[in-house]
Amino acid sequence: MTCKSNADLQIIVDEVRSFSEKGAVADYIPALAKVNKTDLSVAIYEKNNLCIYAGDYMRNFTLQSISKVLVLALALQDRGVDYVFDRVGMEPTGDPFNSISKLETSIPSKPLNPMINAGALAVTNMIKGESENERWERILQFVSCLANKPNVTYDVEVANSELETAWLNRALCYFMKQHKVVEGDIEELMITYTKQCAIEMNCFELARIGAVFALNGLDPETGERLIPIHIARICKTFMVTCGMYNASGEFAIKVGIPAKSGVSGGILGVVPEKYGIGIFGPSLDEKGNSMAGIKLLEILAERYNFSIF
Amino acid sequence: MTCKSNADLQIIVDEVRSFSEKGAVADYIPALAKVNKTDLSVAIYEKNNLCIYAGDYMRNFTLQSISKVLVLALALQDRGVDYVFDRVGMEPTGDPFNSISKLETSIPSKPLNPMINAGALAVTNMIKGESENERWERILQFVSCLANKPNVTYDVEVANSELETAWLNRALCYFMKQHKVVEGDIEELMITYTKQCAIEMNCFELARIGAVFALNGLDPETGERLIPIHIARICKTFMVTCGMYNASGEFAIKVGIPAKSGVSGGILGVVPEKYGIGIFGPSLDEKGNSMAGIKLLEILAERYNFSIF
Amino acid sequence: MTCKSNADLQIIVDEVRSFSEKGAVADYIPALAKVNKTDLSVAIYEKNNLCIYAGDYMRNFTLQSISKVLVLALALQDRGVDYVFDRVGMEPTGDPFNSISKLETSIPSKPLNPMINAGALAVTNMIKGESENERWERILQFVSCLANKPNVTYDVEVANSELETAWLNRALCYFMKQHKVVEGDIEELMITYTKQCAIEMNCFELARIGAVFALNGLDPETGERLIPIHIARICKTFMVTCGMYNASGEFAIKVGIPAKSGVSGGILGVVPEKYGIGIFGPSLDEKGNSMAGIKLLEILAERYNFSIF
Amino acid sequence: MTCKSNADLQIIVDEVRSFSEKGAVADYIPALAKVNKTDLSVAIYEKNNLCIYAGDYMRNFTLQSISKVLVLALALQDRGVDYVFDRVGMEPTGDPFNSISKLETSIPSKPLNPMINAGALAVTNMIKGESENERWERILQFVSCLANKPNVTYDVEVANSELETAWLNRALCYFMKQHKVVEGDIEELMITYTKQCAIEMNCFELARIGAVFALNGLDPETGERLIPIHIARICKTFMVTCGMYNASGEFAIKVGIPAKSGVSGGILGVVPEKYGIGIFGPSLDEKGNSMAGIKLLEILAERYNFSIF
Repeated sequence: MTCKSNADLQIIVDEVRSFSEKGAVADYIPALAKVNKTDLSVAIYEKNNLCIYAGDYMRNFTLQSISKVLVLALALQDRGVDYVFDRVGMEPTGDPFNSISKLETSIPSKPLNPMINAGALAVTNMIKGESENERWERILQFVSCLANKPNVTYDVEVANSELETAWLNRALCYFMKQHKVVEGDIEELMITYTKQCAIEMNCFELARIGAVFALNGLDPETGERLIPIHIARICKTFMVTCGMYNASGEFAIKVGIPAKSGVSGGILGVVPEKYGIGIFGPSLDEKGNSMAGIKLLEILAERYNFSIF
Repeated sequence: MTCKSNADLQIIVDEVRSFSEKGAVADYIPALAKVNKTDLSVAIYEKNNLCIYAGDYMRNFTLQSISKVLVLALALQDRGVDYVFDRVGMEPTGDPFNSISKLETSIPSKPLNPMINAGALAVTNMIKGESENERWERILQFVSCLANKPNVTYDVEVANSELETAWLNRALCYFMKQHKVVEGDIEELMITYTKQCAIEMNCFELARIGAVFALNGLDPETGERLIPIHIARICKTFMVTCGMYNASGEFAIKVGIPAKSGVSGGILGVVPEKYGIGIFGPSLDEKGNSMAGIKLLEILAERYNFSIF
Repeated sequence: MTCKSNADLQIIVDEVRSFSEKGAVADYIPALAKVNKTDLSVAIYEKNNLCIYAGDYMRNFTLQSISKVLVLALALQDRGVDYVFDRVGMEPTGDPFNSISKLETSIPSKPLNPMINAGALAVTNMIKGESENERWERILQFVSCLANKPNVTYDVEVANSELETAWLNRALCYFMKQHKVVEGDIEELMITYTKQCAIEMNCFELARIGAVFALNGLDPETGERLIPIHIARICKTFMVTCGMYNASGEFAIKVGIPAKSGVSGGILGVVPEKYGIGIFGPSLDEKGNSMAGIKLLEILAERYNFSIF
Repeated sequence: MTCKSNADLQIIVDEVRSFSEKGAVADYIPALAKVNKTDLSVAIYEKNNLCIYAGDYMRNFTLQSISKVLVLALALQDRGVDYVFDRVGMEPTGDPFNSISKLETSIPSKPLNPMINAGALAVTNMIKGESENERWERILQFVSCLANKPNVTYDVEVANSELETAWLNRALCYFMKQHKVVEGDIEELMITYTKQCAIEMNCFELARIGAVFALNGLDPETGERLIPIHIARICKTFMVTCGMYNASGEFAIKVGIPAKSGVSGGILGVVPEKYGIGIFGPSLDEKGNSMAGIKLLEILAERYNFSIF
């Protein structure tokens, strides 16, 4: 284990907590704005539930964009690599995560990658199921399995609030429907997508999901295969090239591990072959990443030589 | 009157009909594709129902984008010049009429002008009324009044067909809703907008509407004021700077009169102080303008010195 | 004559001078920044040197972008309409005058119109001549002829200063050279273009040029044809659709006459069949147009019903 | 060593050579077009000159864009990390390598990363030296040192030919000069940049350079430090996020190693801690990468588990 003890880790957490001051909590929906700006918790999961923690690591938060990489792993299993990447690209972009311009200027119209909103919406649209409800249940079950948490839930208030105000995501969906990148009813897709973003868990559970990716798809307790190895790799690759919004390039240089962040302030980190990391720090920088969370990863990466480069 | 007789005009119509061959009829909805590609009719309205015609001038067609300029005239009366142009710009654009990119890159987000789809949708959203139905009735009544046609109708099949497939316009609406350029229910707005585009009339009636603008808002029969003079001017100005999609600049140079076209193949033309012109020629060039209709206007403009420049 | 006397005109000038306060003088080169911000002069030329003035109408200023429309008139005579518009478009744009993006996204690469910098540079590149010097002499001679000023000169300090700092125009030129829109040596082209922009004259002379366009190309004293009628019309059309940078649409609505402005604060106005107008007011709005100059034209247009719409 | 023998490697080379057929040799300058389309050679360098080869591995080719990553390593040493990234970004982009639009739409104007042309030109502009010649000599000496080749040369014909036709790169330079991202004389910068792209070597030498990066900056023979470790890491990170033009994301998923390609058909590959790889296969895909070279790396990566993800 990297840090010998929870106490070691707590020292670093206390060290970087002040970075929360400069950022701001997401407040585009009231439910997200209710958190304490200086909260900061982290869990590092090795295997067999060997894990160290710091901060209020049992506090729940919503996955938001972190869910994109999990649903991608499911869609790749449901549809295969070729089907998915016929509809969504593999290239990182310097544009903001919610940009629509490139959909218009690309010929054929195709979201650049599955980590921007357009791409993630298209990926959720690919999940198999007879009904929207069945698709949603399959997503929930898959995340439960990764987190080893039998009853994964979602924050109904957050989901409803986002559903009521997600005009930009609707614009992306209708634009993609025009270009046959998504199909079916857009409101149903929006319901599933906003629920997926509102899935809630704590740092420990998120770190365990990270450990699955670190082990290339194996359950860190049972050794059972939860994700095919080639799909785990694809997911980690996207986490490096476009996991941290349009600060992914900078994060790759300064930290150098696969990671995916969400506007709730969560970060899913993966140290290949070694650890899964779960972080919650709701104060965001201007790109939408947890300010203290990123600083924490920078220190850990430097101290314990995490970088894959 | 410019042409001394219908026969004179018919000669020109026959002369330019062949230009229809190179174009294509709009076929994005089945109802629009049903027309005869080489149809070409025209009416030139002077005043007091003094009018000359050629072709099958009683054939009905849908207004499509021509409706944008009529609804703009109503919105300007409903809301005033400042309200309208706080929300929609006055500048022409080289981008296609259905482009969304500029909405994203403009700060604040604002449709460039009321003749592109985004701007027209925002304008329709401004029409006053207690309910969507009342707004629609007011549009219909205003158009009736301009055309002096008591029971203006719309093509239900065309309207429904567009409503079912107008994903791109929905994308524009939701994008503008995000940026507070439009408000209220988007599906209701879409219903009104698709009906407005499906309003049907013939060349004669369209020419009469043109005559109202030519006379700066006066009824060409009764002399009654139907549109305030400053609003009639604003409408004519937009018809010059952006009435013919992104071929407006070329049309201003080659023809030089205020005009507005629609993908049905209709063109509303205005020769200030003199005539209103209505044309129907469904074969379109790649910009979406009636091929034979534009050629017809080029010849008329040259022969009778129509250009305002 | 519109205003009965110089005194009438002076009253309006005094009325709008205060609008200069809110703007700023162009200061990207020191030579331009030396002027007095509240200067405001105007001349309205009818014919046979019948002209009224107000302000310091004999003060020289440089043409800057106003030169674009004059050189276009010469290029159209040198090369013909088809040659010119094969290389430069006819469409207005909502983009800034010095934008390069659209050159990249348009296929084939082609400046949208001759009034933005890219288009104007391409037009200057079309002027006929065995050498760059001959091309320059021909431009100078043509402007002399329009202004009826035997020895038109240019401000050497302004020209040199712009030549030393015009990196963006060089970028546009090299981009167009890549796409074969311009040919030959770029530095030579830059020298001619910066000289053309630095041509100096006063309001009276500028108003006389406006009168040539108002009379569709005829000399307002001798009646001699200086510009073919179809070319005079093309120039006036561009002045309406894109003469006032990306405020052209608004100007068309609020004033409604062909006009071309420059960052020196000059405006060339044309009231078809009637007057040429020359204005100098160096305090600019954020789009680059003379603040007091535009206000002056708004008042004149409303009072004397100048609008062509 | 991965492949036990040259014979093993030759079998793979023969297997993928047919992929050359579908691509095309760069022909924008005559000197580049002279090569044999189906050439394919590769060297894999371990350490102490332990290396296996296949194909005509002693054939020289020019580095082209591969030079970008080498000059970046030097600039980071010359100026430090902060100076460099104040002027050039760290983010990958979905835009083509020679795009200029994003320079205009980004505020402040800043090339997105050092691997696109704009960024690479800015980086070359940062190399220290009293004169352009001294800067060039320092680049040459640094590359010599990495390749352990005392007299690294450049292809004068290629350099001159590119210098004569590189209008787009000049456009990028002048645009950046306007925005103060580059300074000094642009023609001098162009001379250095075109020479740098024309540096020539063979696969063996390129593989040796790769080994330096694989060993995080250490000389693979002497163990001497040639590049500081943090700079070697930065370079490898950019090779992953943006080394293969706008196919970098796809390459990261399919191959998963740091790599940089050039339009000559060269590829520099790095298997961290293990090997440097040099490839020459001049037949390019539409993104500008060696078709057979990429296929070769896909097979090697899969067979010998090269991916860092």
